Amino acid sequence: MKCFFNPDSVAIIGASSDITKLGGMLLKNLINAGYKGKLYPVNPKGGEIQGLKAYKSIEEIDAPIELGVIAVKNIYVASEVEKLGKAGCKACSILTAGFKEDSAEGAKLEKELVATGKKYGVRILGPNCFGNMNVKAGFNVTFSHLLPTAGNMSVFSQSGAVGSSILDWSCSNGIGLSKFVTFGNKCDVDEADMMEYLSEDPDTKVIGMYCEGIPRGEKFIEAIEHMPKKKPIVIFKSGKTEAGSKAASSHTGSLAGSDEVNNVVFKKLNIHRASDLEEMYDALTVFSTCSPMKKDGIAIITNAGGLGVMSADATFDASHIEAAKLAPETIEAIKKAVPTVAGVVNPIDIRGDAKPEYFRGAIEAVIKDPSVGGLVIMGSPLDTADLNSIAKIIVEMRDIIPIPTTCCFAGGKKCAEANAILVEGKIPCFPTPDRAVRALNILRKYTINASEKQDQLAVPVISGRKVSKHIIDADIKEGRYGLTEAEGKQIFNAYGMPTPGEAHVNSAEEAVKACNKIGYPVVMKIVSPDIPHKTDVGGVVVGVESAEEAANAFNKIMENCKKNKPQARLDGVSIQQMVFGQEVILSMIRDPQFGPVISFGLGGIYVEILREIAQVHVPMSEQQLDDMITSTKAYRLMSGARGIPASDITAIKDMIRRMVLVAEENPEIYELEINPVIVGKEGQGCWAVDALCTLNQ
Amino acid sequence: MKCFFNPDSVAIIGASSDITKLGGMLLKNLINAGYKGKLYPVNPKGGEIQGLKAYKSIEEIDAPIELGVIAVKNIYVASEVEKLGKAGCKACSILTAGFKEDSAEGAKLEKELVATGKKYGVRILGPNCFGNMNVKAGFNVTFSHLLPTAGNMSVFSQSGAVGSSILDWSCSNGIGLSKFVTFGNKCDVDEADMMEYLSEDPDTKVIGMYCEGIPRGEKFIEAIEHMPKKKPIVIFKSGKTEAGSKAASSHTGSLAGSDEVNNVVFKKLNIHRASDLEEMYDALTVFSTCSPMKKDGIAIITNAGGLGVMSADATFDASHIEAAKLAPETIEAIKKAVPTVAGVVNPIDIRGDAKPEYFRGAIEAVIKDPSVGGLVIMGSPLDTADLNSIAKIIVEMRDIIPIPTTCCFAGGKKCAEANAILVEGKIPCFPTPDRAVRALNILRKYTINASEKQDQLAVPVISGRKVSKHIIDADIKEGRYGLTEAEGKQIFNAYGMPTPGEAHVNSAEEAVKACNKIGYPVVMKIVSPDIPHKTDVGGVVVGVESAEEAANAFNKIMENCKKNKPQARLDGVSIQQMVFGQEVILSMIRDPQFGPVISFGLGGIYVEILREIAQVHVPMSEQQLDDMITSTKAYRLMSGARGIPASDITAIKDMIRRMVLVAEENPEIYELEINPVIVGKEGQGCWAVDALCTLNQ
Repeated sequence: MKCFFNPDSVAIIGASSDITKLGGMLLKNLINAGYKGKLYPVNPKGGEIQGLKAYKSIEEIDAPIELGVIAVKNIYVASEVEKLGKAGCKACSILTAGFKEDSAEGAKLEKELVATGKKYGVRILGPNCFGNMNVKAGFNVTFSHLLPTAGNMSVFSQSGAVGSSILDWSCSNGIGLSKFVTFGNKCDVDEADMMEYLSEDPDTKVIGMYCEGIPRGEKFIEAIEHMPKKKPIVIFKSGKTEAGSKAASSHTGSLAGSDEVNNVVFKKLNIHRASDLEEMYDALTVFSTCSPMKKDGIAIITNAGGLGVMSADATFDASHIEAAKLAPETIEAIKKAVPTVAGVVNPIDIRGDAKPEYFRGAIEAVIKDPSVGGLVIMGSPLDTADLNSIAKIIVEMRDIIPIPTTCCFAGGKKCAEANAILVEGKIPCFPTPDRAVRALNILRKYTINASEKQDQLAVPVISGRKVSKHIIDADIKEGRYGLTEAEGKQIFNAYGMPTPGEAHVNSAEEAVKACNKIGYPVVMKIVSPDIPHKTDVGGVVVGVESAEEAANAFNKIMENCKKNKPQARLDGVSIQQMVFGQEVILSMIRDPQFGPVISFGLGGIYVEILREIAQVHVPMSEQQLDDMITSTKAYRLMSGARGIPASDITAIKDMIRRMVLVAEENPEIYELEINPVIVGKEGQGCWAVDALCTLNQ
Repeated sequence: MKCFFNPDSVAIIGASSDITKLGGMLLKNLINAGYKGKLYPVNPKGGEIQGLKAYKSIEEIDAPIELGVIAVKNIYVASEVEKLGKAGCKACSILTAGFKEDSAEGAKLEKELVATGKKYGVRILGPNCFGNMNVKAGFNVTFSHLLPTAGNMSVFSQSGAVGSSILDWSCSNGIGLSKFVTFGNKCDVDEADMMEYLSEDPDTKVIGMYCEGIPRGEKFIEAIEHMPKKKPIVIFKSGKTEAGSKAASSHTGSLAGSDEVNNVVFKKLNIHRASDLEEMYDALTVFSTCSPMKKDGIAIITNAGGLGVMSADATFDASHIEAAKLAPETIEAIKKAVPTVAGVVNPIDIRGDAKPEYFRGAIEAVIKDPSVGGLVIMGSPLDTADLNSIAKIIVEMRDIIPIPTTCCFAGGKKCAEANAILVEGKIPCFPTPDRAVRALNILRKYTINASEKQDQLAVPVISGRKVSKHIIDADIKEGRYGLTEAEGKQIFNAYGMPTPGEAHVNSAEEAVKACNKIGYPVVMKIVSPDIPHKTDVGGVVVGVESAEEAANAFNKIMENCKKNKPQARLDGVSIQQMVFGQEVILSMIRDPQFGPVISFGLGGIYVEILREIAQVHVPMSEQQLDDMITSTKAYRLMSGARGIPASDITAIKDMIRRMVLVAEENPEIYELEINPVIVGKEGQGCWAVDALCTLNQ
């Protein structure tokens, strides 16, 4: 991977003197970026190209090639890869289009390409990509002549056009770049590879990614989980909707995964998922320019009461920060430093006619307040306000402000120069109060999650694999991929997951014995192939509470049936434990990209009407298990509030841990759903009343 | 009100030659704006100010003054208003600060001001405001020297600083202004006045408003409902949160109303409520530049697949538009006009190397498609794309594109010129695909709501006012402001709202008669001051199903009680109808600003756990009543889906109509809540099982 960013030598295959051609543009961009390594333009005509000796073919280059960049016609690409492979090159970027995204023939060419790359051990970026860049090294083999300033943020994008927008944004907003890559059709190098590479790259402190699908999900997760030092990651994944997915598959041929699973996985990995480009930019800006936000209180300083109200609203909407309650000393200090200040609460309104120096005084006061963890400074372009001087003061104070700080000078042309001063001074600034506050909320959320302890899930030491494998193997042998309810429950029992007790008895004595084992109350029913409507003939007794009642019920049922259906064959009586409690739903589904995901929520008719389900990716921690349960409305019904008796949370947690084990030990199982699990009152336990289990086909 | 925008003569009280002083700045801004009327600078020193004859006092001006603009020290303001009043002036803008927003003395000065204004019939804008503007007339008495281009949008803002941001935005984004006002402390002229004025202003097609509270809510509603021709209104109301309200009350002394009610009222009036400044700008932009959007299908044309995916996502999230399904002829036409086009679906990806003219071809094709109601054009700043030429083509085509069109060139500096071309050409353009799509969604929502028929609510012809007034008067006389449950139910019955039948009987014969009247099943209970635990002594019979059972139950209860509690005084038996069905909650609360609001939602334990309630403002239409009911989760449980029997929707609708009548006829009632209403199966009716009623104090 190193060769894509720090190659000592690069061959541009398809280089041209004509800079309106792609190969010419690429070479020019690379030269202009100030690349210091060896550069071999390749063109069948040979001669000199853009002042460099040109080679007629790859074979002619009598030196190692660390990276090949290919911009020749699609049908010639595979053979050029082969030549690179033979020349010992291990990496190539293919910017040529006309492959999978284009047509069936293109897809065939791409297959050929992949095979050739594999054969010679050449890693391939693209085809149909926009290229790659390492700003610090002056290395640029993209179609963009723009070179941003060097910075600590690396970005990779599936789409070249979106990558191009991000580049342009970076150049215009002063947020410097380190590495930049676009994947195009990602026939080989993909998100997981990049994540792995960037996780160890010392010049990358923040990672941004645009994608429409993450094909090697488990590898991707692994790359992030094994990051030696955690780095903030911002992902804008589109193609999240049905309509979006259709567009995605038509343009790079990728398939967007089930979208909710992405949220579950991103949350687990402490990745900030941006909902649009703007939020991606805002998040990258704040991660790139601010240190972690260690406390949640923010102070808001403004020359405009109205902007203060907006930002107070925004802190209220934010889930991880709030307006700090200022200490009396802070208020005193502000009053002293800022003669114009209106009633000192937070937001601190220092008025439209406040002198720029008053901003300094207010900032100095609030950063000393122990309850303040972040700062938002806002200005309105009033004719009485000198925003440029205010901006300069903020930039001057940058190094003495110990907490994350965002700014918003809300307006248009009148704010442009002040905003430019802030950008130049690496102060994150946003066009509206909401976005300035939201950026701190994103930062704070990341900081909290990054510092949260994660204890390994206390999975019971038990294995039901012997039983489950036996059942699964038999089913597969029979060509069945959906297990019966009984088979599902056998697997549950093998893993210690309780189901309501059941028995089949042939005498009153057996009934008593079985009931004593199962526990009361039970329902008893006649077993007979000839009695479809059991209740009509007195073949059912509900609510059997004791041994005595059990014996009586057995006799009564047999007696009734003999009397009412004298011809019927009677095969004894079935006994089922009656269980009571809160209905919840519990399920596992194995996502094709990311692996098993556990879902939990309210059961019964409410499942479908309320559609309120919490999900966690497996493996999960004890804290994630807790969060999943407590985040649901089901929990509010189970927690003992509002006069409803508390449910056995300990039991349902235990059942979930065992479900995780089932998922981990049985890769053949695709889906497993229990609807409902009945959760009894505290200490009573819970029971899987139903079982739906399907296997991978 | 006309005098605030089209005065033939203006006196600037506190005018100065020093343009750093407020009075000097105001005069200069007014002169620079090109004001054509008579202008009287007033300053005790007299002489000449900024080239104009200055008057020593208002008395010296020997001509009519249509508008007085005051910028003298706070303590002198009231006497200047008095002088203006004596001179026959009927309108004045007070830009001076130091009133209610400042201190207790300030509040006193403001009271004095209001009294003086009332005495002389002078309408007052402010104090503590930023001024007012009529761009078309070259009239500007604000602190801002910026004068936007003349346009069809009028904006008013409670906050001067926010107004100033909006002005700056307008100047920078080419969205022209008509009238502009800020209210400051709004001691007199307020939102309702402005709404009334702008509703008839021929130069105003779109209205934008920033506020933190709407004090005269009912007047405000009236102004909008009586608008001769409906105009799109965009409101950004902040101070919506607890934290926000606190900031609001400290800075202009206003109190933010209960926020949800604002949503309810805005929805009813087809006002778009923006959630932040950015959304306000976007909504104003699209209303200001586009015609109504008459169909919901949108076509997306892009040179970047990734941007297409993002916008497809955005259409999926949008609730009022979707990606149009293009006709085969459209697809053929695009293929013909655009050789580079990728698989023609919608989004239409015409590729990064598309020539500008291809955009023209694609646009020409889609605007002929009958399923396309709106258009989004997007460009990525690829080096292969000539965005400026694309922008020029779009501007050229402006008049032949018959449908609302928004653009997004996503990037930074590389897009700046193209965006400027679009702005200049009055094509709404946005920095991200999401915002371009959202703008059309806002437009479409407005268009749908504006064309929706609203039938008057079919309130039953009945009045319970005689009964209710009797009860209410008696309660007020006793100093009680909370009615008893029985009193509440009496009111319900007077308005024909059913409650479960009740009776008190002293014999088996009476019991049978009462039960026959009430209907079965019923529950019967002993009435006795000496029997607290009725069930324990056999004093309760549940589920009485027939006349025979009723007689038996009466006798049995009396017998049991005589036997088990021989000493107890027995006062007969109470009978209550047993009702079954879906529990819902129904309530009315009289909002201090906007009047009665009806709420409806799921009842029982779910009320508090799910917090899912729909609300409508009174008066409501039949359609609004329907919408309220069908938008709830309660409705999903009542509509007969998922095997649950359908509930009596007709009955609950009838009850709500009667509740509206109660609210309208009984202004003394502050709050009325029925939790639960039991809604029986279809045809069974519904019953108010409970009643909570409080009066205004």
